Amino acid sequence: MPDKAPWITYRPELKVLDCTIRDGGLINNHLFDDALVRAVYETCVAAGIDYMEIGYKNSPRLFAKDEYGPWRHCEEEDMQRVVGDHDAEATGLKLSAMADAEKSDWRHQIVPAEQSPLDMIRVAFYAHQVSEAVQMIEHCHELGYETMANLMAVSNITEREIDTVLSAIAPTPAGTMVIVDSFGHLYREQIDMLYRKYAAAMEGTGKEIGMHAHNNLQLAFANTLEAIVLGANRVDATMMGLGRGAGNCPMELLLGFLRNPKFSLRPVIQLLRDHIDPLRETVEWGALVPYNITGALNLHPRSAMQFRAGEDRDDYLKFYDQITADE
Amino acid sequence: MPDKAPWITYRPELKVLDCTIRDGGLINNHLFDDALVRAVYETCVAAGIDYMEIGYKNSPRLFAKDEYGPWRHCEEEDMQRVVGDHDAEATGLKLSAMADAEKSDWRHQIVPAEQSPLDMIRVAFYAHQVSEAVQMIEHCHELGYETMANLMAVSNITEREIDTVLSAIAPTPAGTMVIVDSFGHLYREQIDMLYRKYAAAMEGTGKEIGMHAHNNLQLAFANTLEAIVLGANRVDATMMGLGRGAGNCPMELLLGFLRNPKFSLRPVIQLLRDHIDPLRETVEWGALVPYNITGALNLHPRSAMQFRAGEDRDDYLKFYDQITADE
Repeated sequence: MPDKAPWITYRPELKVLDCTIRDGGLINNHLFDDALVRAVYETCVAAGIDYMEIGYKNSPRLFAKDEYGPWRHCEEEDMQRVVGDHDAEATGLKLSAMADAEKSDWRHQIVPAEQSPLDMIRVAFYAHQVSEAVQMIEHCHELGYETMANLMAVSNITEREIDTVLSAIAPTPAGTMVIVDSFGHLYREQIDMLYRKYAAAMEGTGKEIGMHAHNNLQLAFANTLEAIVLGANRVDATMMGLGRGAGNCPMELLLGFLRNPKFSLRPVIQLLRDHIDPLRETVEWGALVPYNITGALNLHPRSAMQFRAGEDRDDYLKFYDQITADE
Repeated sequence: MPDKAPWITYRPELKVLDCTIRDGGLINNHLFDDALVRAVYETCVAAGIDYMEIGYKNSPRLFAKDEYGPWRHCEEEDMQRVVGDHDAEATGLKLSAMADAEKSDWRHQIVPAEQSPLDMIRVAFYAHQVSEAVQMIEHCHELGYETMANLMAVSNITEREIDTVLSAIAPTPAGTMVIVDSFGHLYREQIDMLYRKYAAAMEGTGKEIGMHAHNNLQLAFANTLEAIVLGANRVDATMMGLGRGAGNCPMELLLGFLRNPKFSLRPVIQLLRDHIDPLRETVEWGALVPYNITGALNLHPRSAMQFRAGEDRDDYLKFYDQITADE
């Protein structure tokens, strides 16, 4: 198998992570019922997906349990209730949770890996939080977890800041450094530039490069493909692109592209029909015009989400005028 | 300005064609009212768009006038009623119509360019129709029109067929050879392969390479960007991606990316609010799951459109099972 397989073959090292519950949960304060989470879990197993990120390990002090659902904290008993005696080897699926710098009681909240169904902790952080992120990665590694480093909002910081973060992450035990386009702003050439920068900084460390895309400009899937073509071996997606604002790279498109026969699209299509499409009755996501606008302007989609929640939700011109006047 | 401008500058040679009415009209038999067509026209002028394709020059024998709207035939009086004394020089906007091989009475239907508001005729054809297409291009050129050659459904023919078509088009007076992804099937590496093939075949002829993408895999905008990065200088888009099935490359995304200050996004956002979004009450388009499936399988979206018109429209799994059983 060549190192850079063309679109008709595949790289066996390429692994797919489903973050429907973790990232998609930002749409509804992680108030998914157990049946949905279990359905996503079973779909991941049936579809041959490599990792499922079941939620955040975030602090109940900061995210109160009467306001946020269980997947904001991923207490061991909540996970166990849904995935039972999860067996990563038998199912081929590893479970992951994300811990944010400054939002997680990581010193106390995370049990040793052998006592948890979780195989991986992904550490999410902004550039200025990199020192805490390094400690978190080392701590989780010592507890026996695989780790990834997710530097968020990369479109909003300087190249110098990126370089500094990469230098700090390179010597850690993190298995993967992830390109995270939080604002869904990156165009093809920027993905190229970042991939090359990340790969060069991690050279010789054995780390993989990951890709986590958002769909504000309808580029989440394309940017994920771009990263794959360049050599990224860890890619994130969510079922039907479920996610806050414009959402994420859709799993059904990604699996439709990947040629590794271990992946199966049919269980995903079934999940979309039975569980994900029906969510549209209560929550909205997708690459709507206001998200196109914040994406193109390299802004957090917050203002677009607020606008879509208001009375003038379809007055795209009003939103455009407001947001360009703010600039 | 460098030949291959990075994403922060621009190539002045890059020209944008709006085909909302022509290609979008396949969604409703071109039964747009004059107000909508005029609004698109005025938006194109205000936004600095280079070409507007106002419809097809197709045969009224094959497309009866009591069934199809005026933009299926583009009679001179219909165009005049909407665009009046259109002045390409004063407005910066050229008008175009598309004529299909075998579907157009091109020998009789097209008047000399000096008698028409049209500046360009685009000739659309399948590979086996290339001989008629060459005659059409020569005929329209003699009538004083700029011409483009649009080889359709390129994902469905062999490289040898593509090469033969390109050899036949190269010596014609066509100004542009367009990559047309009718099924919305092409991935990034295939766009690269086709661009290089088209560019090599047209080398020395002075022809530009164009890109016309469909959104079945949410890749219309990304593939258009890819072609631009490679050097394509003629790109198609429609307002809000309006188009049959999954639709087209959205103009608002394209203009949000292009850095030539002659383009203006605001009039497009206004048009979306006032004229295009309201169309969703009567017609459906977008990268829905059934179109994702036909796109990934390299199939015409016809079956997906029929499915979405039926009672089981949301039963994606049924559609998936039907179409994969047919294969």
